[in-house]
Amino acid sequence: MPAESNKLSDRVSRGEPAAVARAISKIEDGRSGAAALMKEIYQHSRGALVIGITGAPGAGKSSLVDKLALLYRQRGERVGIVAVDPSSPFSGGAILGDRIRMQTLGLDEGVFIRSMATRGNLGGLARATVDAVAIMDAAGYAKIIVETVGVGQDEVEVVKAADVSVVVLVPGMGDDIQAIKAGIMEIGDIFVINKADRDGVYATEKELELLLSLAARDDGWDPPILKTVAIENQGLEALVEAIDRFHQTQRDAALNSDRRRAIARWRIIELLREKLLDRVLDSDGSVAMLNRLADEVATRRRDPYSAVEEIIQAAKS
Amino acid sequence: MPAESNKLSDRVSRGEPAAVARAISKIEDGRSGAAALMKEIYQHSRGALVIGITGAPGAGKSSLVDKLALLYRQRGERVGIVAVDPSSPFSGGAILGDRIRMQTLGLDEGVFIRSMATRGNLGGLARATVDAVAIMDAAGYAKIIVETVGVGQDEVEVVKAADVSVVVLVPGMGDDIQAIKAGIMEIGDIFVINKADRDGVYATEKELELLLSLAARDDGWDPPILKTVAIENQGLEALVEAIDRFHQTQRDAALNSDRRRAIARWRIIELLREKLLDRVLDSDGSVAMLNRLADEVATRRRDPYSAVEEIIQAAKS
Repeated sequence: MPAESNKLSDRVSRGEPAAVARAISKIEDGRSGAAALMKEIYQHSRGALVIGITGAPGAGKSSLVDKLALLYRQRGERVGIVAVDPSSPFSGGAILGDRIRMQTLGLDEGVFIRSMATRGNLGGLARATVDAVAIMDAAGYAKIIVETVGVGQDEVEVVKAADVSVVVLVPGMGDDIQAIKAGIMEIGDIFVINKADRDGVYATEKELELLLSLAARDDGWDPPILKTVAIENQGLEALVEAIDRFHQTQRDAALNSDRRRAIARWRIIELLREKLLDRVLDSDGSVAMLNRLADEVATRRRDPYSAVEEIIQAAKS
Repeated sequence: MPAESNKLSDRVSRGEPAAVARAISKIEDGRSGAAALMKEIYQHSRGALVIGITGAPGAGKSSLVDKLALLYRQRGERVGIVAVDPSSPFSGGAILGDRIRMQTLGLDEGVFIRSMATRGNLGGLARATVDAVAIMDAAGYAKIIVETVGVGQDEVEVVKAADVSVVVLVPGMGDDIQAIKAGIMEIGDIFVINKADRDGVYATEKELELLLSLAARDDGWDPPILKTVAIENQGLEALVEAIDRFHQTQRDAALNSDRRRAIARWRIIELLREKLLDRVLDSDGSVAMLNRLADEVATRRRDPYSAVEEIIQAAKS
């Protein structure tokens, strides 16, 4: 029997949960070893189906994700869940959510759950999230669900980077112009009205139909509107079916390759942005300089534009 | 009578609305002239009070902002409004919102309204928003309200960059763990429960009090919870009063300077990130290279990490 490699990427590719956890922590920290690790990880890509789920706070996304995961588990598939939690840099919000989750899914070894929180000012959440998905893919999780709270720019990008994007609404939201402005309408391949046992389902559905009819897609897909009551396990089968159908439709379509190219372009730019910043702020000296300039900008002795020029000049020399 | 300067920054500082609009468009495009313009603009800083307002879609933020603006107008102050609309890259969402707004505020020359939408993959929304605020400040708008939809990372940063952060909730949101995870709790200096004529106000208020008691601030400020019905003009006076009070409390406090320093640091980093990317992707050749590499990543012939290394190598030589 040949000895198994102890390399982290090999352990990930054998599906060891502890290795997956360690790999994700490594890329979350985002330092030197991360790039080398990810290059290896990408060689183990297996092509999981990545499902992005987004919607406003309070839409019941977590319950929906959990039930969806359970359904995939019943089919014998391993499921990865990445919960993106961008705006909780200070508190244990993510941890609290995870703990409650663990009660339903946590004891099942076929499910891997990870919350990604912001790394603070230096950004990189979107990049880290996509890398976490790649790690889970390499580890053999066949369905990977990326759940994002909210409708920020980063989150929209993350959901767009999925193979299928599901937008979750609740009855009664649709009557506000803000919901239109949020613009999540345009990224959904599938729409779910969750908490569909509440009043106002019909109005929300009609409004959504109207909005969708205004925003014509160029790939011939007509986004379905599904109704669920996730906590009572209603409507989940139909969601799984819609996800399958969309995936099947898109798999061989030319448009899918356009989508994949746009995603790849976005990923390269995100990574490039982060890497370039790291290179400039890589020494104690440059960090001290940044702090001094921040002081000067804060006290209005200097404008941020000339501060940036000074940092770039110093990096050149 | 001396001739007036036609320089854009001088016209901005004289408060000409057309110049303000042009200056903001220029910084939104983000190209070469923008940095020079902003350096001049910062010399005209007047120290407006910047009020950040955030909350989930459907919370009625736009109405609240409009009524708040009207109240400041009644006090004779000029008001700038920046509506950040990060997730509507494709549609006319922002424009629709603006049109409706114009019916209430648009004919008043003392109000300047601008929606900022995402610039697509290249980011820079947060930077452009902060610059738009600086332009309005230079133009003499004494109160500048920054309204953001959603709870994404960028939006949180934008709101944190304000002098006062107001978080808007609605009754019935608070019962969902997602609302906690959204983490906007931690950035609010003032909390508003809007649509307070609906059921569930008491429960939301109690839950919010509990959350706030868990997240102790280190600056001695106890964030008030206000109730408003913005569309009926209820509770707005109390909001104005709370904003004034917070501003007064913080003005001379040492903590305010910590906050200003953190904001300045974030702004420099945002700007640096954007500038560095622009420098690498500044030629047709580098854009062609990016597109070729995106193709290779999309078809899994290459991983994004090595693609980024190739771009950086090419930029060096």
